[in-house]
Amino acid sequence: FSTSQTNTIRATLFPGDGIGPEIAESVKQVFNAAEVPIEWEEHYVSNSVDPRTNSFLTWESLESVRRNGVGLKGPMATPIGKGHRSLNLTLRKELGLYANVRPCFSLPGYKTRYDDVDLVTIRENTEGEYSGLEHQVVRGVVESLKIITRQASLRVAEYAFHYAQTNGRKRVSAIHKANIMRKTDGLFLKCCREVAQKYPDITYEEVIIDNCCMMLVKNPALFDVLVMPNLYGDIISDLCAGLIGGLGLTPSCNIGEAGIALAEAVHGSAPDIAGKNLANPTALLLSSVAMLRHLKLDDKANRIHDAILKTIAEGNHRTVDLGGKSTTTEFTNEVCDNL
Amino acid sequence: FSTSQTNTIRATLFPGDGIGPEIAESVKQVFNAAEVPIEWEEHYVSNSVDPRTNSFLTWESLESVRRNGVGLKGPMATPIGKGHRSLNLTLRKELGLYANVRPCFSLPGYKTRYDDVDLVTIRENTEGEYSGLEHQVVRGVVESLKIITRQASLRVAEYAFHYAQTNGRKRVSAIHKANIMRKTDGLFLKCCREVAQKYPDITYEEVIIDNCCMMLVKNPALFDVLVMPNLYGDIISDLCAGLIGGLGLTPSCNIGEAGIALAEAVHGSAPDIAGKNLANPTALLLSSVAMLRHLKLDDKANRIHDAILKTIAEGNHRTVDLGGKSTTTEFTNEVCDNL
Ligand SMILES: CC(C)[C@H](C(=O)O)[C@@H](O)C(=O)O
Ligand SMILES: CC(C)[C@H](C(=O)O)[C@@H](O)C(=O)O
Repeated sequence: FSTSQTNTIRATLFPGDGIGPEIAESVKQVFNAAEVPIEWEEHYVSNSVDPRTNSFLTWESLESVRRNGVGLKGPMATPIGKGHRSLNLTLRKELGLYANVRPCFSLPGYKTRYDDVDLVTIRENTEGEYSGLEHQVVRGVVESLKIITRQASLRVAEYAFHYAQTNGRKRVSAIHKANIMRKTDGLFLKCCREVAQKYPDITYEEVIIDNCCMMLVKNPALFDVLVMPNLYGDIISDLCAGLIGGLGLTPSCNIGEAGIALAEAVHGSAPDIAGKNLANPTALLLSSVAMLRHLKLDDKANRIHDAILKTIAEGNHRTVDLGGKSTTTEFTNEVCDNL
Repeated sequence: FSTSQTNTIRATLFPGDGIGPEIAESVKQVFNAAEVPIEWEEHYVSNSVDPRTNSFLTWESLESVRRNGVGLKGPMATPIGKGHRSLNLTLRKELGLYANVRPCFSLPGYKTRYDDVDLVTIRENTEGEYSGLEHQVVRGVVESLKIITRQASLRVAEYAFHYAQTNGRKRVSAIHKANIMRKTDGLFLKCCREVAQKYPDITYEEVIIDNCCMMLVKNPALFDVLVMPNLYGDIISDLCAGLIGGLGLTPSCNIGEAGIALAEAVHGSAPDIAGKNLANPTALLLSSVAMLRHLKLDDKANRIHDAILKTIAEGNHRTVDLGGKSTTTEFTNEVCDNL
């Protein structure tokens, strides 16, 4: 990671749109209070399409992440219009963000129907149903191509097992529909099996996606680490977020080529409450914790993590989305006090 | 529907494998007790592949359903081996079963994390990700084709809106991922919108599948009728079953070309408890109720439906899968007593 003269680590920050700048402010405040040695390089979504990226993300922004190797991203609303790419998809493509990692755990004291969720979804983030290849064959008949490659499947499987091992996790479940998509999902499973061989201490299992979703809603405690192709990951990571309260509470981190890590809040930009000091910064704060862990700043990560959970557990400093009355600032101040 | 000399309706019965014959026996007993005017034509899975169907289902079995227009099916375990088709897929293909309809409702008195589920999933059952078209392009690169057609999309959308209207439902939600699969899922949505125009009294909305799964686990009461392409239907129908206790409790009915209706229990054949009088016949019984409704035998359907729900609500005649001690026979006798 690039360090400046003062021995701090440089990281790219995309505050994003809508509530993005407010929740990014919250992270900056907490990082200051916790004396995290990070120096932010802030980048904003541009007003016009950069021809070098064919998107509203400038080439300089992408270069910043590549140079720093690490970044944090708030919600970005893709401007409506034709001829340019979605901001999220641009980031995934340009930075080779091949694994989307989402730890999902019940927050003590915040009641949902589930109190025993503690799992991590690891989603292949570059191919599968997201190939973008679609054709109209004849009028009224449209096809789309799902692409599964050995390279991308091995890469995400490697990441999942490595993650499990280094995070004290015991089991990896590969999620698939190989009983129907025998060749594509079959290849994905084959790659997972190959990698599983190298991790004899980690239990490996395969679960069909429909059954997986049924088991998740009946008994999520059955799961530990889940690894899966792109679309299944998209679906299951949101399902899991729902179990513990929604996207406003779940961290996410994307792992890319050359060791890049881009943590992000995956919720929307909530334009209706933007600028009103009402946003819940939890997802971005927890994502920043994931970024710190990636940087091996575990002490700082743990301190911030615990302060966030304590603040939510206390109950009297919750933001409106969690049924509380606190502003973003009040919540953030309390997190700082709890450090 | 074909009626015999005695004015009864002929229906095909596939008891199926494993626990299939026991739960089919339960349906027969309840139908006798309720004096349902149905005469069963029983068909079993063959021991060898019928070359006319390329499956273990004989041509005569399929002809029976075609002739009768209506049938009930227990679980069928597809024999392992190459060169023949899965039994379920064969039925869908050969009988043109284009819509899989699964009512999903909380069972009073049977506690899960949810007590307010009352929705119906309607799944396109013939195309999409189930095309069976997969290729290895070059070594390590495999693709599969998802096919969406205007014809099949309109057909299932028509069915969904018609179902909503005739069953007193207020809203149809089309589930999709058209933000990524713009052309395929886009065509599906276009067809739903077209049909929605013809049903001004039914509210129509579109929900992205990842968001749908999150909302379903947070608040399933938000949903009424859901219509969707094949794979999303596979996933969401099982997720919904999980909300209310699992596949052992949810009915299913397939609607096919020429008005065919094949109701089925979608759970497995449970070979471990087969022949032990331990199976829970609820899913097949509720499926038989769906079949009766399709036949417009609503009085009989309601009587049986209420007796099943009463038996489960009483609590002291539950089968082992529901935490009870009753045998299949004891449960069935109680349903008959409750008629
Ligand atoms: C916004 C959308 C393109 C995106 C996806 O489908 O990947 C989102 O759902 C996500 O999970 O990041
Ligand atoms: C067994 C399998 C082929 C089938 C499917 O995927 O359709 C099952 O999950 C179902 O929902 O009926």
